[in-house]
Amino acid sequence: MQRTHTTEIKARIGQRVRVEGWLQSFRQMGGINFLVIRDGWGQVQAVGETEAEVAPLTEGRVGVESAIAVEGLAVSEAQAPGGVELHELRIEVISPALEAPPVPLNKRKLGASMATLLDHAVVTNRHPARRAILRLFSGMLGSFRSTLLARSFTEIQTPKIVASATESGANVFQLDYFGRPAYLAQSPQFYKQIMVGVFERVFEIGPVFRAEPHDTTRHLNEYVSLDVEMGFIQDHFTVMDLLRDVIADIMATFTEQYSAELELLKVRLATVPEQIPHIHFSDAQELIFKLHKVDVRGEPDLSPQDERWLGEWALREFGSDFVYVTGYPTRKRAFYTYPEPGRPEYTNSFDLIFRGTELVSGGQRMHRYEDYVAAMERARLPLEPFESYLEVFKYGMPPHGGFAIGSERLLMQLIDAPNVRLTATFPRDLTRLTP
Amino acid sequence: MQRTHTTEIKARIGQRVRVEGWLQSFRQMGGINFLVIRDGWGQVQAVGETEAEVAPLTEGRVGVESAIAVEGLAVSEAQAPGGVELHELRIEVISPALEAPPVPLNKRKLGASMATLLDHAVVTNRHPARRAILRLFSGMLGSFRSTLLARSFTEIQTPKIVASATESGANVFQLDYFGRPAYLAQSPQFYKQIMVGVFERVFEIGPVFRAEPHDTTRHLNEYVSLDVEMGFIQDHFTVMDLLRDVIADIMATFTEQYSAELELLKVRLATVPEQIPHIHFSDAQELIFKLHKVDVRGEPDLSPQDERWLGEWALREFGSDFVYVTGYPTRKRAFYTYPEPGRPEYTNSFDLIFRGTELVSGGQRMHRYEDYVAAMERARLPLEPFESYLEVFKYGMPPHGGFAIGSERLLMQLIDAPNVRLTATFPRDLTRLTP
Repeated sequence: MQRTHTTEIKARIGQRVRVEGWLQSFRQMGGINFLVIRDGWGQVQAVGETEAEVAPLTEGRVGVESAIAVEGLAVSEAQAPGGVELHELRIEVISPALEAPPVPLNKRKLGASMATLLDHAVVTNRHPARRAILRLFSGMLGSFRSTLLARSFTEIQTPKIVASATESGANVFQLDYFGRPAYLAQSPQFYKQIMVGVFERVFEIGPVFRAEPHDTTRHLNEYVSLDVEMGFIQDHFTVMDLLRDVIADIMATFTEQYSAELELLKVRLATVPEQIPHIHFSDAQELIFKLHKVDVRGEPDLSPQDERWLGEWALREFGSDFVYVTGYPTRKRAFYTYPEPGRPEYTNSFDLIFRGTELVSGGQRMHRYEDYVAAMERARLPLEPFESYLEVFKYGMPPHGGFAIGSERLLMQLIDAPNVRLTATFPRDLTRLTP
Repeated sequence: MQRTHTTEIKARIGQRVRVEGWLQSFRQMGGINFLVIRDGWGQVQAVGETEAEVAPLTEGRVGVESAIAVEGLAVSEAQAPGGVELHELRIEVISPALEAPPVPLNKRKLGASMATLLDHAVVTNRHPARRAILRLFSGMLGSFRSTLLARSFTEIQTPKIVASATESGANVFQLDYFGRPAYLAQSPQFYKQIMVGVFERVFEIGPVFRAEPHDTTRHLNEYVSLDVEMGFIQDHFTVMDLLRDVIADIMATFTEQYSAELELLKVRLATVPEQIPHIHFSDAQELIFKLHKVDVRGEPDLSPQDERWLGEWALREFGSDFVYVTGYPTRKRAFYTYPEPGRPEYTNSFDLIFRGTELVSGGQRMHRYEDYVAAMERARLPLEPFESYLEVFKYGMPPHGGFAIGSERLLMQLIDAPNVRLTATFPRDLTRLTP
């Protein structure tokens, strides 16, 4: 008999159907046997009223997570999850589970330590709460891509093995490339800028690698970066408008297509205002002084406390969970950042702050060759390793800018997960290389 | 004045518009000045009838590829490319090109050695022929993704830094991961299998890394792999049906959305038959003996000549550029390949051969823990480094299978490019790490 997906059973009431999937749960209550079968589409309950029907499970002591096929009569049943269940069962064990999962996968609450969860991720990722997060992750990538394709961006894929570190020599993984040293890309920064000359608007979804020895709830050493770069911008505000739409579309996608996941995770999404309020770095420091009597003026960066205060201010003044801080000081931004016209100690850059924590960074980049040479000399970066990349700036690069989103961290913040390792499928950190 | 994209000018005949883009070409003929401006959407011709109009270009000796803005009157002109051109120009140089490009970018033919082309890829990728290929590449990724999303596959992203080589210890890049050895993933093989237990159907688009010391027209050391894996299959034929649809959809996408690129590249696409003919490995060897009097029976693999003969046979007998060879011998396939029921010296595997050359490999994988342990012992692979991956096979893995497509090589073959380096944006080979 041909297979029916669990979500299609409702259209076949009164017929015998065959489902194939994993035995999500198996309970025997008062002589009645309740099975839940999960497949790639959803799940369905099957009810066996006789011992004979479930003998293939009980005789072989077949555990949950076994791959099974169940043929049964599709019956409308208001009490059953999804309003349908299977009766008069014929069960076949396709591939039995040999052991009980290291963590119960059919309890609503995922009761396990982080270490257990991650050590056994090959199985614990099957838990409904884990699947919900990983599905949201996938939906987030899809939404990001749709937003950009709809705006004439071209998807690119750039090399991850590079001859020189992108932004600095620190925090970079080194490898042996046929006898010479090479590095893992910390970001596709230069490549996406170069590709502005080819397509004008580009984006990339791909891994980046940071050898940062930080063991925090916010750091991964390999993560999926969502990178955007566009040409012929006015300034960083053009980029900020796009980023606003990207985030708003992700929220809309979650709400419209992932409501079950949000409900299961008890997530209440923020709303993105039509116009995200913005404040210049120097004004932000003045504001903090005025509101909190703490003088951070002259500091080259915002502290976590500063960001929290600005988040509170944006919520109070504008009812917004989001606020842009623009114009970060030159000495704290990457050398390629475009200086603020008239105030070169500041830059045409921004951070998007969400509920008091930095979410995304971006800005306008320099576009003239001579500006790069000067900036790299100031930053004491050698030109030679970057020669091949810098070449592009000799050939009419327009004003351009973009942003990079750490996708696991974005999802962590949007759904308020306590640790970025929980939004990664198989996280890589200071000590974790498996699974 | 607000910017108008080149493709929108036709809707504004009789109005003054502002375009921004790159100066693709600039010719002065009989006192009349012809400019072509290219932006992220297309290109437009601008005609200056006076020296004064083009003074910003001639006085500053501004070369092609400069970023410029041109305001002009949109005029319907049947002779002009696209049926529209700009008159009465006001030109502004946004960012001048400092040098002539290393290769002429506005000649139809890309007349340059491979080395020049690749050394200066940051600029040569702007040539129309290069852009056409890179656009097709992007379209291919989009088509692949659409086909799979439409069939309930979930997109995943799996780690590229791994604790052990996937398939063998050879041909793997090693790196230093906080003081311990780690490797770059040669394929997401195990991860995509693991994720079948989570989502049943998964795909991934991402880089893979092969330290193969081969300097050929078909090898890259980093490439973008299109990976698919699905559960609850009948056998490898389920996977072959899906792969047929993936390839057919890519062809349809090219035909429907990229006709200009195909025309520019003079590509004549093959057609994918509804049913791709297939032949078992052992029958293929018999056929070759019968047709060509060459006895390859007993050989463990097909030679390039064998594949060419099979390609010719499929074209002659079935009118098909494509042919599946199934059932490759166990000793030549990866240890995780599912043995052919009843003939364990063969496997439930396949190669898709296109015009006589292998295009894609795939097959059914083993799904029982004990089969993995036995196969790895036979292959003399140590179990310990794979323990964390193998764990998943204790938990009811269904019959599953999939395939992996080397995307640059697929595109190379589909458009009949002479070298795989030409379908990569910034190729990585034995000697090339930049740009």
